[in-house]
Amino acid sequence: MTNTSWGKLGHYLRETQLLGSIHNTLYWDQNTSMPSQAAPWRGEQLSLLAKLLHARQSSSEFEALIKEAKIEFQANSSDSKEEYIAKERNLDLLELELNRQKRLDPQLIVHLSTAQTEGYSLWQEAKAENAYKKFAPALKKLIYLRQQQAKQLDEERSCWETLAQPFEPDLTIKRLNQLFQPLRIRLPEMINDAQNSSKNKLPDWDLDESSQESLCNLLLNHWGRDQKVTALARSPHPFSITLGPKDFRLTTRVVPCQPFSCFLATAHEWGHSLYEQGLPLQNHQWFAWPLGQATSMGVHESQSLFWENRVARSRAFSDRFWRHFANEGAPFNNGLDLWHAMNPLSPGLNRVEADELSYGLHILIRTDLEIALLQDGLDVLDLPFEWNTRYKELLGVTPANDSEGCLQDVHWSEGSFGYFPSYLLGHLISAQLSESMAFSLQEKDYKSEDPIDECILEGSEFKLLLWLRNEVHHWGRQVNAEQLVKQVTGRSLSSNAFLNYLENKLNMLTSTS
Amino acid sequence: MTNTSWGKLGHYLRETQLLGSIHNTLYWDQNTSMPSQAAPWRGEQLSLLAKLLHARQSSSEFEALIKEAKIEFQANSSDSKEEYIAKERNLDLLELELNRQKRLDPQLIVHLSTAQTEGYSLWQEAKAENAYKKFAPALKKLIYLRQQQAKQLDEERSCWETLAQPFEPDLTIKRLNQLFQPLRIRLPEMINDAQNSSKNKLPDWDLDESSQESLCNLLLNHWGRDQKVTALARSPHPFSITLGPKDFRLTTRVVPCQPFSCFLATAHEWGHSLYEQGLPLQNHQWFAWPLGQATSMGVHESQSLFWENRVARSRAFSDRFWRHFANEGAPFNNGLDLWHAMNPLSPGLNRVEADELSYGLHILIRTDLEIALLQDGLDVLDLPFEWNTRYKELLGVTPANDSEGCLQDVHWSEGSFGYFPSYLLGHLISAQLSESMAFSLQEKDYKSEDPIDECILEGSEFKLLLWLRNEVHHWGRQVNAEQLVKQVTGRSLSSNAFLNYLENKLNMLTSTS
Repeated sequence: MTNTSWGKLGHYLRETQLLGSIHNTLYWDQNTSMPSQAAPWRGEQLSLLAKLLHARQSSSEFEALIKEAKIEFQANSSDSKEEYIAKERNLDLLELELNRQKRLDPQLIVHLSTAQTEGYSLWQEAKAENAYKKFAPALKKLIYLRQQQAKQLDEERSCWETLAQPFEPDLTIKRLNQLFQPLRIRLPEMINDAQNSSKNKLPDWDLDESSQESLCNLLLNHWGRDQKVTALARSPHPFSITLGPKDFRLTTRVVPCQPFSCFLATAHEWGHSLYEQGLPLQNHQWFAWPLGQATSMGVHESQSLFWENRVARSRAFSDRFWRHFANEGAPFNNGLDLWHAMNPLSPGLNRVEADELSYGLHILIRTDLEIALLQDGLDVLDLPFEWNTRYKELLGVTPANDSEGCLQDVHWSEGSFGYFPSYLLGHLISAQLSESMAFSLQEKDYKSEDPIDECILEGSEFKLLLWLRNEVHHWGRQVNAEQLVKQVTGRSLSSNAFLNYLENKLNMLTSTS
Repeated sequence: MTNTSWGKLGHYLRETQLLGSIHNTLYWDQNTSMPSQAAPWRGEQLSLLAKLLHARQSSSEFEALIKEAKIEFQANSSDSKEEYIAKERNLDLLELELNRQKRLDPQLIVHLSTAQTEGYSLWQEAKAENAYKKFAPALKKLIYLRQQQAKQLDEERSCWETLAQPFEPDLTIKRLNQLFQPLRIRLPEMINDAQNSSKNKLPDWDLDESSQESLCNLLLNHWGRDQKVTALARSPHPFSITLGPKDFRLTTRVVPCQPFSCFLATAHEWGHSLYEQGLPLQNHQWFAWPLGQATSMGVHESQSLFWENRVARSRAFSDRFWRHFANEGAPFNNGLDLWHAMNPLSPGLNRVEADELSYGLHILIRTDLEIALLQDGLDVLDLPFEWNTRYKELLGVTPANDSEGCLQDVHWSEGSFGYFPSYLLGHLISAQLSESMAFSLQEKDYKSEDPIDECILEGSEFKLLLWLRNEVHHWGRQVNAEQLVKQVTGRSLSSNAFLNYLENKLNMLTSTS
């Protein structure tokens, strides 16, 4: 194999992936084990790796390998049609990435990596001390560097759109507005409805750390975790990351007085991990090739949100799982108690802890603000005011301080702009895929109105995973997010399925309160 | 500074150290967090880093940088004598390392790295299943590759001596025999004396994991741990490793029915870490230069053994600490009880859990065997027999199986040959340094016969650390192990201080039993 141009290119990609996964390992360690004062040196290590990675991804050697593989591919007529399309797509994506990397000044890569480490460190301090001004200069620098990056990339897109491409390939602000517009109107109305209907509010309660840990382990074991290829740890901000073809890591956190935080974060990150575990692995020909990668962060989020919201927050799951919570001391007498407790439907200040109704509004605010910061001249110093104004308008709440407000998320401190919409796209995609999943299940074994709930109730979540494996995961980057949705569901992506899902859930929740 | 040749060389060394510390981070993760099936990919990552590191350490760019820095150094007359000597030593060591690295075939580096990963993985399986034959082929391969390495290095030393150089620079087998000969004679005699004197044997007892964890944290806090620069985790084999100038990691383990294992391993690894923490750090000019590194593993072990044996296993420490053990449920009524329990003086099969008397014999066996394996033709398949024979002869015990026998240590599985004697040299060095430390303390504040015990009894272990910092740690590789001992103690290294220390301790233990 390695005598062919195609094989040589594959070998090169494999080594690039080795280097990338080393970078990921350092990131994992940084967030789970590293002592705080080690941050500057870790930053230098990450910068060095970023420099080496960029050099590999923009080298003339790489360019020549792609060129030769393309010539060989075009001369070879033995491929099946399916294989031909897949190979062509791989080459297209490699050329796209190469051209992007080649346009970037290596100095910028190093500056960005350093600024990300500094930004993250200052954000942590600023958040702990509620001192936004401490973080503001770092944010300003990151925005400037990302604007430089967009300029160097020189695509026929706006600055924000250019930066969003690695997360959501082919996304435009116009399309985003189209998809999100119905949500801007309907979500506040639905929140209003939810607040007007009375609800049983539990007295304050909490679970101790070891109980939360037990419940998370119970959940992961029930959902088929294999401890020989996965590891779970704690970090300040939950995440999921892949360090190798048989090395999937996820983190969660325990938040005092938020007894579901750890559990739902575990469900969420496990959903991410399941998607990664379903991509072409080491023994598959597209491993280390573009088609072996996740197609978009929106699709990624659709997988985490499916397991967090559609499964763990479902009535059926509560009916199966409430006894485990009760055994650990939670004040539940039946599934309905757990279900209501997990679905509070009251808008708060915090995105990660938000309910499904208000979650979208958190994203709309962030998306608007980062577009404003990057391409519409919003001054960094005006961010807290703009943030608070929009929270008051859309969610009717006002942060007591910036730590609860514009400092709550890690993303901007790491220089990630363009990521936030993926969360909301994930909600839309998850809901639309779920409709098709339900339809498939109905065609097979399940005849009830809600076959997904039926599976959950009988403890057969593996059937849901199997459908996702067969329909969604294995495609990798063969198709982009919208193409994937169209292919699987037969319809273009829209907010309809998500809004229908929310309306149903809202009705059920308010009628059983 | 970076405009001078000296500065450019320093910059190059810094980047090499960044890469080396990335390698260390992967090693840490592998032993503390990584799921088992991730091992092959981790092996590939480590091989890639080993290849990159070797390329940097043997490059013509590096060679030119050293050459130019040397010319600049020789032309520059403004250095003080002390600075001149230090710079000269740095250059000598860099040239030595460069010449070694240049002689090595890059292919061998990759083969070795792969064989180390495979060896480690097979050793784990073989140990768990008590199946030495499963590990034997990997060991054979590692020995072959190390023999190749010694051949390529082509030094005026035997194969084993060549491989021992990275651990003990300038060591010869002849000198080793000189140092160890008195131990071969005296240790079995002393063990015999110890066994003949009656001892209070405690009924079997244990401590639960959380108690062991509490005691370790108490110890580290008492010994001045700064959690902003250190992290503690669990691993199958305890170790200490430095991941950055402010990033010191150590691990321990909990062994059922060995209630001191975790505590003493923590003390031991903390001693290693203190040495690393005392070397020239990021703000010191020799950081990333040879003089910023540990001078030998023998000196390294002397530091860990000092804290484990001279301090934590001392009578004074027991008198201070026994109440903490009793609070966690250990069956002690006074310091004497703890002291006797921590110093059982009965020869067993396990090196890591061995008492101070028999520890040396474990090392003599391993040293003899690895010399035999590497340069005297001992067949890998005969190792278990030879191992068991020597244990019977020297320690009077026979392993029930190879897992307790020749599979107990990790070193050979990682291809480390020549390391074991460092443990015993560490005992010798620790004892000889301790005599000088006691003398210094007597000259200052402490007038008692045992001023080290006096310090421990009053909880002033920081004074012992201060002495080590001033006399031992900061030298780095300015002097080799034997030169360091001569310089600090005024005498050549010998086994006298160690044997005196053991005799005293044995007398005290048997007279108080």
